[in-house]
Amino acid sequence: MINIAILGFGVVGSGVAEVLKQNADSITQKLSGEKINIKYILDKRTFPDHELGDRVTTDFEKIVSDPEIVMIVETMGGSHPAYDFSKQAICAGKNVVTSNKEVVANYGTELLELAKSHSVNYLFEASVGGGIPIIRPMWECLAANKIQSVTGILNGTTNFILTKMIEEGMDFDEALSLAQCLGYAEANPAADVEGMDTCRKICILASLAFGTAIDPKNVHCEGITKISSEDVAAAETLGYSIKLLGKAEKRAEGTYIITAPHLVGYDNPMSGVRDVYNAITVCGNAVGDVMFYGRGAGKLPTASAVVSDIIDIARVCKEPMTWTFSDEDTCMDHKNAPVRFFVRTNDPNAKDYFAGCVFCDCEDGTYAFITDEDTEFKLSEKLNNISVLSAIRVL
Amino acid sequence: MINIAILGFGVVGSGVAEVLKQNADSITQKLSGEKINIKYILDKRTFPDHELGDRVTTDFEKIVSDPEIVMIVETMGGSHPAYDFSKQAICAGKNVVTSNKEVVANYGTELLELAKSHSVNYLFEASVGGGIPIIRPMWECLAANKIQSVTGILNGTTNFILTKMIEEGMDFDEALSLAQCLGYAEANPAADVEGMDTCRKICILASLAFGTAIDPKNVHCEGITKISSEDVAAAETLGYSIKLLGKAEKRAEGTYIITAPHLVGYDNPMSGVRDVYNAITVCGNAVGDVMFYGRGAGKLPTASAVVSDIIDIARVCKEPMTWTFSDEDTCMDHKNAPVRFFVRTNDPNAKDYFAGCVFCDCEDGTYAFITDEDTEFKLSEKLNNISVLSAIRVL
Repeated sequence: MINIAILGFGVVGSGVAEVLKQNADSITQKLSGEKINIKYILDKRTFPDHELGDRVTTDFEKIVSDPEIVMIVETMGGSHPAYDFSKQAICAGKNVVTSNKEVVANYGTELLELAKSHSVNYLFEASVGGGIPIIRPMWECLAANKIQSVTGILNGTTNFILTKMIEEGMDFDEALSLAQCLGYAEANPAADVEGMDTCRKICILASLAFGTAIDPKNVHCEGITKISSEDVAAAETLGYSIKLLGKAEKRAEGTYIITAPHLVGYDNPMSGVRDVYNAITVCGNAVGDVMFYGRGAGKLPTASAVVSDIIDIARVCKEPMTWTFSDEDTCMDHKNAPVRFFVRTNDPNAKDYFAGCVFCDCEDGTYAFITDEDTEFKLSEKLNNISVLSAIRVL
Repeated sequence: MINIAILGFGVVGSGVAEVLKQNADSITQKLSGEKINIKYILDKRTFPDHELGDRVTTDFEKIVSDPEIVMIVETMGGSHPAYDFSKQAICAGKNVVTSNKEVVANYGTELLELAKSHSVNYLFEASVGGGIPIIRPMWECLAANKIQSVTGILNGTTNFILTKMIEEGMDFDEALSLAQCLGYAEANPAADVEGMDTCRKICILASLAFGTAIDPKNVHCEGITKISSEDVAAAETLGYSIKLLGKAEKRAEGTYIITAPHLVGYDNPMSGVRDVYNAITVCGNAVGDVMFYGRGAGKLPTASAVVSDIIDIARVCKEPMTWTFSDEDTCMDHKNAPVRFFVRTNDPNAKDYFAGCVFCDCEDGTYAFITDEDTEFKLSEKLNNISVLSAIRVL
């Protein structure tokens, strides 16, 4: 049994509990049978109706002095007391996992150093890009490379606002109101729309990529509040999308780092990143450009990153990467799976057999349509009735 | 000093040597001062002009019986003797790193088991997606999730061919010839265009994602040889790109796995993956969809993945993830970096000050242009001469 404590039972903290419960069986398997137990939850509020309600405490001292606690999960947000508690926990020999970009950006250097000297881990995958794996891949999977640059759409709220401005012609205020209605933006949206959130995250990525701490206070930071719908339209005419980017680049003169809106050309896959999605492009001198893409925020995506860090620490006696042989045939017959087919045909009967589908005329006199969903087996039988030029599955 | 041997000094093997040399300083730093030494290269050919020419041998027994060798890098390709050498190496207590998807897909279960029982590593990041981090992120960073599906554009050659068919209206034979001319497709392109390469890779990913070995022989596999330019054009009319996908999904009935061309809607970021690029989308029950994107093949990208695996094994006493504090200001003034600006203005003098730029008229009577590249400092000075409505950097 691995005992942990969660500090802060808000969106992310309760998401961590949810993921640990929902995937308990597969997680226990990954830990060779060891179970993770949430022994304490630190929060000022009480949660009488929650099944973990009896673990809630306001007493941090009790947590940090409990020798059974090997790991502390800091999901409080804000610098204080999150930083102070993290420091105390590390000094008490506890591993710390965090989703708190403010603490990592402002105090990461000190806490990482402290963790090293106490032989514990300070892990922060969830602090950048929500559930997108980026911190560890950059550290481990791209270790062969000298990282030359990191560029990211790192804030879902502002990307949502810009998407609405681009696709629906909204102006900034209108798009911000919508984001607030949908719960994507807070009542006070300054940290998002003025770029500070993006700035903290690009500082974390740049510090890790280049090995030297970069303080957000030293980084030029512009938000998106001055972007007008006229800008968006004119950029579109020129073949660009406007995106709020964090950008860090190793140059002969030093590290070039900036947070600001940028025009991104349509040939760059980052230009197509919509809504609350995030994307981070890392350029290494061997690998070239690699991009990581996914939901950059949200309860379960962020919890996914936190829990993966928890598992990593719990895998003290690291299970090797593996899969097992199974005697049973675990694959189903692909003909029994539901699919849709794109069909190209010159058979006039097709419109009868596939009535209800939308038919589109092709230049060469043939026509094409997409079937409704059915098993491949049944669709193949139905397609046998007509003369088919092409049948291709639809994702 | 960590002594390794490279089996097969072709494109990938020589790329590994190149990356180890080019990034020797940063790699040594990541290994706390320890150096990686290529003690042997196994190849039938000789390389008299290569600086490592004196390490070349045809004698595998000498390599595997040398107690100084802790790691063997298998970049031979093909099943035999690559599988046999890997097995022998593992049994002799050597760690093995490979880029060989054929061996991993066909013999991975056995070699992983064998490696476990001999307490050594068998790592294969380079076997799928070239330099794109995917194997380890799926295993570690998404460990909190139950993986529900993996879908990938896993073969650069076929994606190049399809891109040429989509964007330039080429037919299959024409696009294949071009791919062969450019060295993207081999003289015998069967493994690529008939889907076997994609099939092996999706089997590796599915085995890892779902924990049970999937044999490529049991997987339905269709290539792209039957795709016509008429199909491509009709799909486009309907709002789709045609992509060769490997697709594996956990369903109640078992694992649904298939290799086949699919229509991918324009709203899916995989539809925009062009040329020799690869992309893999993993769906986890907590994180949702995350996508990994980059060059799926090529000498240095593949070597990047191999060398990262080498570093991972060499980090026996694992250095914690960290960055250091620096007293000097390592960030340059962002005003000294070269940038381009998108400018929106209603100043009639702009065309004189920025002669040579292309101006575009906006609907509201203003006009927009993109400056030539210069330092932000100089461009700002120049922009002071005109009345500017917006100035936004261009990525």
